[in-house]
Amino acid sequence: MTTPFRAAAEALAPVDQVAALATSEHLDRLTKPPGSLGRLEDIAVKLAAIAGTCPPPVPAPAVVAVFAGDHGVLSEGVSPWPAEVTAQMVANFCAGGAAINVLARHVDAAVMVVDVGVARDLDPAPNLIQAKVGHGTANLALEPAMTVEQCLLALDAGATTAAQLVAGGARCLITGDMGIGNTTPSAALIAAFTGRAAAEVTGRGTGIDDLMLNRKISVIEQALNRQKQAPGGLAEPLVVLAGLGGYEIAGLAGFIIGGAASRIPVLIDGVIATAALLAARALAPGVVDYCFAGHRSAEPGARVALTELGLEPLLDLDLRLGEGTGACLALPTLQAAAKVVAEMATFDSAGVTQK
Amino acid sequence: MTTPFRAAAEALAPVDQVAALATSEHLDRLTKPPGSLGRLEDIAVKLAAIAGTCPPPVPAPAVVAVFAGDHGVLSEGVSPWPAEVTAQMVANFCAGGAAINVLARHVDAAVMVVDVGVARDLDPAPNLIQAKVGHGTANLALEPAMTVEQCLLALDAGATTAAQLVAGGARCLITGDMGIGNTTPSAALIAAFTGRAAAEVTGRGTGIDDLMLNRKISVIEQALNRQKQAPGGLAEPLVVLAGLGGYEIAGLAGFIIGGAASRIPVLIDGVIATAALLAARALAPGVVDYCFAGHRSAEPGARVALTELGLEPLLDLDLRLGEGTGACLALPTLQAAAKVVAEMATFDSAGVTQK
Repeated sequence: MTTPFRAAAEALAPVDQVAALATSEHLDRLTKPPGSLGRLEDIAVKLAAIAGTCPPPVPAPAVVAVFAGDHGVLSEGVSPWPAEVTAQMVANFCAGGAAINVLARHVDAAVMVVDVGVARDLDPAPNLIQAKVGHGTANLALEPAMTVEQCLLALDAGATTAAQLVAGGARCLITGDMGIGNTTPSAALIAAFTGRAAAEVTGRGTGIDDLMLNRKISVIEQALNRQKQAPGGLAEPLVVLAGLGGYEIAGLAGFIIGGAASRIPVLIDGVIATAALLAARALAPGVVDYCFAGHRSAEPGARVALTELGLEPLLDLDLRLGEGTGACLALPTLQAAAKVVAEMATFDSAGVTQK
Repeated sequence: MTTPFRAAAEALAPVDQVAALATSEHLDRLTKPPGSLGRLEDIAVKLAAIAGTCPPPVPAPAVVAVFAGDHGVLSEGVSPWPAEVTAQMVANFCAGGAAINVLARHVDAAVMVVDVGVARDLDPAPNLIQAKVGHGTANLALEPAMTVEQCLLALDAGATTAAQLVAGGARCLITGDMGIGNTTPSAALIAAFTGRAAAEVTGRGTGIDDLMLNRKISVIEQALNRQKQAPGGLAEPLVVLAGLGGYEIAGLAGFIIGGAASRIPVLIDGVIATAALLAARALAPGVVDYCFAGHRSAEPGARVALTELGLEPLLDLDLRLGEGTGACLALPTLQAAAKVVAEMATFDSAGVTQK
């Protein structure tokens, strides 16, 4: 049976090198020294490759999908925040008072919250998609966080969300996340997919002391050892994602693949989304060509993952909040790159002498 | 007699540490881990200090003032572009087809062009301020680029422009520049104000080969030697700016001081504007507290100047176009910082548990 996630992974096509080249050539006809708009020009070329047209369409309207879930590993003492904050923050998102709401409004992006694994049952809200697969994950230090079946359902929820948002008119998808404790599964996934040691990719999340950081590293090492000995071990991407991930991380992986399958640019936020992108790439090679890294998170794992993915982030503002905040702040730059191609005068049209 | 520039320099007041502290404290009550919005929080605090209120006002509407001038040093062969391009690009700005027009429209900023020293006389246009002090500077390798009197008139034009734009409602001023050859005077000023060698601060501008780069460095060394032996030498800021600068650079220095005197944030673009800010600081200490560096230009001199000024740029996109493009791209981030303070829910108001 073809599920939404499987269908999206199969639909994923290579990006369009012809449109990319045409954009690159057009950029050199515009009234500016060749290459002087730096990374803005690279972004424009990538947007053209994604859409398959020159000039590339402006990536708007944009929607931030905030995937939310809870984490059994919280019982190991890896975060100073209680699990109840996940549901409380979802309520804050739905009421419009969180950082992501402010930043999304500022850049004209909508915010949708997707409950894939919050422990508490949530009241309906207009901007809440109820797609709960489970009430929080199991403790990944002791057993797989999700079964493979649960993980597939979360991937489906993500792919379905992407398809629905694109059908509703979205032309840029932005990853968001909420889940107290979720830097722990993210660091575990980054270690598993890059082969780096837990200590190299584990950070202080939203703010923990040395004692808790050391415990977090030990917990991740324990989880990696457990996973190594499980059937599928560290070789089978789906088993790795199920074993070490989280509902919202699997949801994001499906969301990213769904956006790419629709040839829509996906703007990646911080460490949670980069971990999801590593999983997405393992499941659907080629997906990275549709993705932009919004910012360089303060988390060490994000830096390792971005290097591994070959993505240079657009912003570097030392953010460590998540929710999609860093990606949202990068949206105007992405849109500006497309507008440069479409709106600037050429040397000929403006009557400017070339060097 | 008090001139507009002198009046602005005298009106410059220290920023408000009480509003800064109030903003810092309020940020810790918002529904996010303390400090997790990274540099966005620092920006918000600085905006509050500038305006003297908490929450800080959103820096909008914004206006980009593109100061334009020509350069006698072009006869030394320091740029592959002919001088006529300055006037042609001013026409392009007035017609709305240049990169700065596209990027300013994208971020809802207006563009005004200020002719302080274009060699050709320009046709009137609705967004062109005619404040010409001279028809291009003298060749700074051989003699002072401007007389002190001309330099003061350009500073006045800048300060007057800032005051007029603020009186017209602008609540954020963005520096822009146009002047074929103007990375040469900028590098000379940066060398003079920081004490660094010409070779350390001279770059390829909009794109020159090794041969031209070496010639450019020699020309700047020659200018610095000439200036060192002139009356006032490298010690008197006004004499340095007149001797090594340009009309648009002096205009920008006056503009920055004028904005600061009105307690309005000034968003600094690339190497030309950073050179102007070094001059502005020498003329009016305290002005840097009102400035934000929009981006890290590809020019080595910009990096040296930003370090000297203690400013960390908001963006790093390898831009080397000027016109105000990098500063314009940073505007949404500046505005986002103010909105975070004003619009986010607190832990109490949202009913979210603190750690």
